[in-house]
This record gives sequence, C-alpha cells and structure tokens, in this order.
Amino acid sequence: MSTDLSRLSLNQETIKQWSLPELTEGCVKAGIGQVGLWRAPVQEYGVERAAQLVKDAGLTVTSLCRGGFLTAVDPGERARALEDNRAAVDEAAALSTDTLVLVSGGLPSGDKDLYAARERIADALAELGPYAQERGVRLAIEPLHPMFASDRCVVSTLSQALDLAERFPAEQVGVVVDAYHVWWDDQAPAQIARAGAGGRIHSFQLADWITPLPAGVLLGRGQLGDGSVDFRTMRRQVEATGFDGPIEVEIFNEGLWARDGAEVLAEVASRYLEHAC
Amino acid sequence: MSTDLSRLSLNQETIKQWSLPELTEGCVKAGIGQVGLWRAPVQEYGVERAAQLVKDAGLTVTSLCRGGFLTAVDPGERARALEDNRAAVDEAAALSTDTLVLVSGGLPSGDKDLYAARERIADALAELGPYAQERGVRLAIEPLHPMFASDRCVVSTLSQALDLAERFPAEQVGVVVDAYHVWWDDQAPAQIARAGAGGRIHSFQLADWITPLPAGVLLGRGQLGDGSVDFRTMRRQVEATGFDGPIEVEIFNEGLWARDGAEVLAEVASRYLEHAC
Repeated sequence: MSTDLSRLSLNQETIKQWSLPELTEGCVKAGIGQVGLWRAPVQEYGVERAAQLVKDAGLTVTSLCRGGFLTAVDPGERARALEDNRAAVDEAAALSTDTLVLVSGGLPSGDKDLYAARERIADALAELGPYAQERGVRLAIEPLHPMFASDRCVVSTLSQALDLAERFPAEQVGVVVDAYHVWWDDQAPAQIARAGAGGRIHSFQLADWITPLPAGVLLGRGQLGDGSVDFRTMRRQVEATGFDGPIEVEIFNEGLWARDGAEVLAEVASRYLEHAC
Repeated sequence: MSTDLSRLSLNQETIKQWSLPELTEGCVKAGIGQVGLWRAPVQEYGVERAAQLVKDAGLTVTSLCRGGFLTAVDPGERARALEDNRAAVDEAAALSTDTLVLVSGGLPSGDKDLYAARERIADALAELGPYAQERGVRLAIEPLHPMFASDRCVVSTLSQALDLAERFPAEQVGVVVDAYHVWWDDQAPAQIARAGAGGRIHSFQLADWITPLPAGVLLGRGQLGDGSVDFRTMRRQVEATGFDGPIEVEIFNEGLWARDGAEVLAEVASRYLEHAC
C-alpha cells in the first residue's frame, strides 16, 4: 500500500474542533503539508494573522471555502453578494491560495426557476471572474448533490457547472470535483474528462456517502471507506486528464468533530491511503 | 381556474391514516375516481377483497406500488426477489391496474458498483417483463432522487431508467415520471420527451420538494405548492408527448398523516387544481 501523503490536503472543516494553531501544528506533526480553509474561522483569527500562521508552518493553502450564494434577484441583495465575494477573493489572495470554492446558492423564496437562477450566477461570474484573475485566484464552481438544489446550490451536476464555467476563461472559472456530490452521476466520468481537458479541475475533494442521512442532511458525510463511493476509480478518472493537484478531504460529520483531532487526522490519512491511493 | 379533477389519482400513501374502505369512501365522496395502491395495505386487507372494494366503489387503480429491489448479488436473494415481483405482478393484475411501479433497489452492503447493480436490474427485467405482459401489467421503473442511490434505488435519473427500459418492449417496461425525484434535473425535459415518444410514460406522479429534509429523508415530501417544483411546466412537458393518463399525487409526510383524511384530500384536490392544472 502507498504511504505517500504528499497529495493529501486536510480541509479544516473535517476537524472543526481544532483552532487554526491546533490545525497547523497537527498537520505539521502528521506530515500533512496542505490544508483547505474556511472563511469564518480565518476571519475570526484574522486573515493576515492566519496567512502568517500557515506560512510559518510551511503549509500550502489549497482552497478557501467559500464564496457564492449568487442567486438573489433583489438588486440590493445581489450587490451585497458581489461585495462579499470580492472580499472572499481578497482573503484567498491573502492566504496565497489560488482557489476560491463557490457554493452557488439556492432558489430565492417562492421561486421555482432553476434555469433563471443559474443565469444569474453567470451574470455574477462575469463580474467576479476578472476581479479574481487580477488577484491570482480562480473561482471554482462546486456542484452540490441534487438534494441541495433548492436551498443551497442550484448547480447540481458537473455538466451544469461546466456549462457555466466554460463561458469564461479557465484561469477565471473552473469547477470542484467533490466525490460526495457527484458519485451517483453516471455522467460524471465524461464530465471529469471534459473539465480536465479544459484545465478546469480547480479542486478535487473527497468524502464518503453514508446513510441514513441526518435531519437537514448537511452533516451526513462519512469518513473515507465508510460508504458507497469508489474513490480510487474517480481519482483515476481525474488523473487521466493530467490533474496532479491536491486531493482534499472535506468531511462534515458530528461524530468526527466529537473525537480527538489528532486521532481523526491519523484516521483520515490511513483511510486516504487505503481507499484513494 | 380549472375545476377538472378527472385526471387526478390519489395515491393511498398520501393519506396513510385511512383504511382501504375509508379511502374508497373518501374518494367517492370527493369525486376522485382514481387511486394508486400499495401492496402492504392491500395484502393486509386481502387482495381479492380489495379488488372487489375498489370495483364496487367505481374506482380505477392507476398503479400498484411496488415491486423492485432487484439488485442483490446472492443467488438465493435474487430468486426470492424475482418470486416476490411475480407475486406483485399477480396482485396488480388482480386489482385490474396495468402499472406496477418498480423501486429498483440500492447497493448491496459493501458494494460500490452502481453500473453492475443496474445490469442486474436489466437481467431481472428480462425475466419479469414477459411474465408481466402476459398478465396485462407493465413494469414502470421509477428513478428515485440521487439521495436514495445507495440504499434504495441505483436508478437516479430518467435517462438511466430509459436506458434500462428501452432494452425491452414498451408494453413490458416503461418509467415513472415522479416530479419529486426529477425536478432538479436539467435533462428531465429531454428525457420526458424521449419517454413519451417511446410510449414509456407509464405513470406520472406529483409531490413537492421542501426543506429541511427530515432524518432518513424518506418522509420529506411536501404538499403541492409548498415547495420548489414547477408542476405546471412539467405537466406540459409530459402532455406534449401525448400522455393523457392519470396524474397521481403521492406524498409521504407525517404532517399530512396526522390530519383528518378528508381534509387532506380536499387540500390535495385544491392544490392540484391551483398548481398542476
């Protein structure tokens, strides 16, 4: 079995119980050189201070989560969303990561038009793309599982994400391939090839699909190997396109959050080697 | 606004609190001429007795739920599943319905191969299709929302369902278009057209998509109009293919089950007229 952890990136939400200093220290101790960060804990700690912390620890930030929520109709709400996304780009640049993950947003209250909502995302990307590119940041549209289509993300498939992304240069807009969200989709292999051919795989993330889903379904992700996702096959598909970037493990699971962080990280590493290498 | 309830069929699971005699009486009183039935309550009441009850009430049975669960690998389990599906066909024939809904089944424990599971369904359909046709029953593959892909139904889209169905004559195998399961899918309109062109829309069902989803997600369906589904547009797509069959309302919702059945039925009828006509 492989013992190579060089491609592994730990998304901080996987060990949410850790503060940023605990995270950097824990990763260094475990030999993990890459982390994915979230805006809220970074802002709480201070963006510049967080950037210095990870730099001092010798860690690379593989992505920042998240911008997005670009589906509002109301002009004031739209302006605030764009403003917030520009701030997210600035934070990504400060952290020296080239990838800002976008969760596109759901349907406005009472609205039933998924197509129009996706067009509003395209309008927003036209404004945000150049702003991001100037700062060395790529916007990565993350298709979320269709169970989030109404309230979180009207972009449900890689195909839809690429239909949006391809309207813009690959240096501005690409996609996230998150195994948890696309594992069920028989179109995913072809869309991974399409994304890779266009240089648009900006992030590759892993979490396992387990059931039963908890109420609200957001925190239902499983540790690698506990569920139904064939990570090794998906990794082969992603790498067949030439992708050799970080492989980020991002699990939202209250069971993991209740445990000792170092123990969870050791488990993530061993499961990654066992199921995704 | 339309007052035409002639196309409406009430799936009995929507008012699960009603016994079969209450269901038939309630429908007759409300001017609903069609019902969709489930095997368990029918078996409990007695298949022949249930058939007589609905016949005496002048009701048409638009579908029987459900056969399926055809993804087992174990030979003994597969044989039992086929046997159970033949019994389901017999029950459908006894109830004089031409449509047996199939929920295909999930992944066997520890299995990660959705493709192979769908092939096992095809193998089973090859055995069941002729048996059903001889008894005047069509097998209707119901794609279930991708959130059920691992534990309930490896057929997640109309496209996948049709890829399976089209290997067999349309008189043997078709599909269910259930708005709840396919509303999010931008491929659904094209696949509805494909299904209709082939005479394979065996059933058209409605429930609304509401959030937050409850734990286990099975009972998260909403009353028509409470959620995100644009029923009128989908009905137009279905009818553009020439479909003029029953429109079955099938909602699993503990809130509806806790209320007076007649009140729920009146609400279903008025919401149907308001949102799906």
